[in-house]
Amino acid sequence: MAAKKDFDTKALRAHKKLRGKLSITSKQKLDSVEAWSTMYTPGVGAVSSHVAKKEKDARLYTMKGNTVAVVSDGSAVLGLGNLGALGSLPVMEGKCVIFKELADVDAFPIVLDTQKPDEIVETVKRIAPGFGGINLEDIAAPHCFEIEERLKKELDIPVMHDDQHGTAIVILAGLINAAKVVGKKLETLKIVIVGAGAAGRATALLLVKAGIKHVVVVDRAGVIHKKRKGISGYKKELAKVTNPQGESGSFNTAVEDADVLIGVSGPGKIAQMHVEKMAADAIVFALANPVPEIFPDDAKRAGARVVATGRSDYPNQVNNALAFPGIFRGALDAEVRDITDDMKIRAAHAIASMVKKPTAAKIIPSVMTKGLSAKVARAVKKK
Amino acid sequence: MAAKKDFDTKALRAHKKLRGKLSITSKQKLDSVEAWSTMYTPGVGAVSSHVAKKEKDARLYTMKGNTVAVVSDGSAVLGLGNLGALGSLPVMEGKCVIFKELADVDAFPIVLDTQKPDEIVETVKRIAPGFGGINLEDIAAPHCFEIEERLKKELDIPVMHDDQHGTAIVILAGLINAAKVVGKKLETLKIVIVGAGAAGRATALLLVKAGIKHVVVVDRAGVIHKKRKGISGYKKELAKVTNPQGESGSFNTAVEDADVLIGVSGPGKIAQMHVEKMAADAIVFALANPVPEIFPDDAKRAGARVVATGRSDYPNQVNNALAFPGIFRGALDAEVRDITDDMKIRAAHAIASMVKKPTAAKIIPSVMTKGLSAKVARAVKKK
Repeated sequence: MAAKKDFDTKALRAHKKLRGKLSITSKQKLDSVEAWSTMYTPGVGAVSSHVAKKEKDARLYTMKGNTVAVVSDGSAVLGLGNLGALGSLPVMEGKCVIFKELADVDAFPIVLDTQKPDEIVETVKRIAPGFGGINLEDIAAPHCFEIEERLKKELDIPVMHDDQHGTAIVILAGLINAAKVVGKKLETLKIVIVGAGAAGRATALLLVKAGIKHVVVVDRAGVIHKKRKGISGYKKELAKVTNPQGESGSFNTAVEDADVLIGVSGPGKIAQMHVEKMAADAIVFALANPVPEIFPDDAKRAGARVVATGRSDYPNQVNNALAFPGIFRGALDAEVRDITDDMKIRAAHAIASMVKKPTAAKIIPSVMTKGLSAKVARAVKKK
Repeated sequence: MAAKKDFDTKALRAHKKLRGKLSITSKQKLDSVEAWSTMYTPGVGAVSSHVAKKEKDARLYTMKGNTVAVVSDGSAVLGLGNLGALGSLPVMEGKCVIFKELADVDAFPIVLDTQKPDEIVETVKRIAPGFGGINLEDIAAPHCFEIEERLKKELDIPVMHDDQHGTAIVILAGLINAAKVVGKKLETLKIVIVGAGAAGRATALLLVKAGIKHVVVVDRAGVIHKKRKGISGYKKELAKVTNPQGESGSFNTAVEDADVLIGVSGPGKIAQMHVEKMAADAIVFALANPVPEIFPDDAKRAGARVVATGRSDYPNQVNNALAFPGIFRGALDAEVRDITDDMKIRAAHAIASMVKKPTAAKIIPSVMTKGLSAKVARAVKKK
């Protein structure tokens, strides 16, 4: 953990020196009367009148067409928990930096002084006109489900909760290549997801949509299935589309003969004995960050052939930054209203395809792979 | 009006080419693992934890310290009326350009899909954590008064409605120099303000605060005075601090022997006969835009010695851009909670001082005067 501590110190120093990571710049210098009179009054009046009359043209004449709001209530910041609005701001600025650097999207952080779903939905709707898309970040489950669902329905611009779908997309991308490495068919893998929070639910739903038949989700109370006592809310919905065999029991029983184990829960939640019970050529994604459910060395010693984590200092980093910049780039360019499951699945295939020859040590491309976000954007746009 | 039409065409073309006027850029390239790990995870976690614990430090470690929201509901866009949120966006982007170019403030436009004061206040409060200041723009009277007042009270960052106070500050700056040109004492000028909207009210209040004794405000119903029948709301408040002689009557009678006439109303509202009734060496500010209350040539023919307008194609342009960038620059630097009347008056003197030798043709500096916003910022910061 020395390296981690080093980065803490370096990050604090760098942030203080930069005084934040984003800058807002003008595309036109105000160095002449001509510039003043076209960028501002009197000329700008004609632009305002035009846009007011023909609202669709806002994408052509204003920043709306290239701008995304990165919205958080700070209720689930990274793995650090509820840090509130200001605590989330450095992370949201970071997301905006990634948007710009990887996909030339102008993203702006909006951190909210409320954690009530109704107020979040209301507020985002009221500030939405100037944006071409809404990227929700680090909002805790289960509130995040309701918030995203309502905003998707009530706004005419794409809305995506990155912690759900960004994660799900990159997991699917990793699985596509991991299946190739172990020589198994993606669709028939038995996949156990440990954790039924934001990422767990979205991953389960996307894997099912992608045609994977045998997906089982496990939470603190054990396997999620239709007949489980007291099951309600979104977990009831989850039970309907996953676990078609209606398997019950605990994590210990579910993991038997599983081909894939995906941890989206917390540090140390997967033991070596779990991995030992899996099928041959086991695939383990241990994505809790910074401390994973099981460390890669331990997983390998227990028989895992392919291991992925959320960390940059191990091979196969599941990093949302592989997905969200290209997803929104494509959505803005195509002026779509929704980011559909089909787009997400195409994005996952695009990400997977950036690794030419997948191996156990490389199923997921680096975030610094040239052309990656552009390829994801093209996949999203494809009809 | 041919020139105006030219600028319309030019502005539409330029805006379409640029696709909006603002760009959000990263202060740090993401070109190495080191950059990723300090700007984003894992390092950013330490910054988030620090800021969450010590919220005051958000100004040091995030963009908050240099960022202002330019907020509008689109209810009174320039002189064009209620264009709504999207219609106001080109103007708000323009304000942000001016903020950046003149005072290196990172300003971002927030255009609201509501025109209800309660909802505007609520929304601005909820998105406020990430901002170091709130600049309200183009919100119609009388709503703008309540909205600004409540936000000033309920937020711990400076809030200013530019259409009120930006205008008032530049008018005061112009009057300081105009009084010198005509050799009269500022404090004893008789000033008639035509129009009791956002700019009229704020101007009246600031002129009184600046020590000018004889300020009279006229609206459609005539002179505003304490005993006027049916007077209520903010106009009642205005009657208390202006018009100490309790003068009644119409615009026609109020204008007699006035030293200064300030039009903040609408096109053509001041006739030559009004100017003819004024005292010698009359000063006329006809600020309706683009068509003033009276054109400068007409005012001069009727006896005005100094004339100012809101237009860039006549001498003496009263332009808010002379005030708001420097005001917020100073407020951010000094981390003040409020922009006080004293700060506004000091800002007006700073703007006036940028014209070394005031003449009838030059009482107000150009917005392109080097060092102007910096001087305003210093004046705001001065204790």
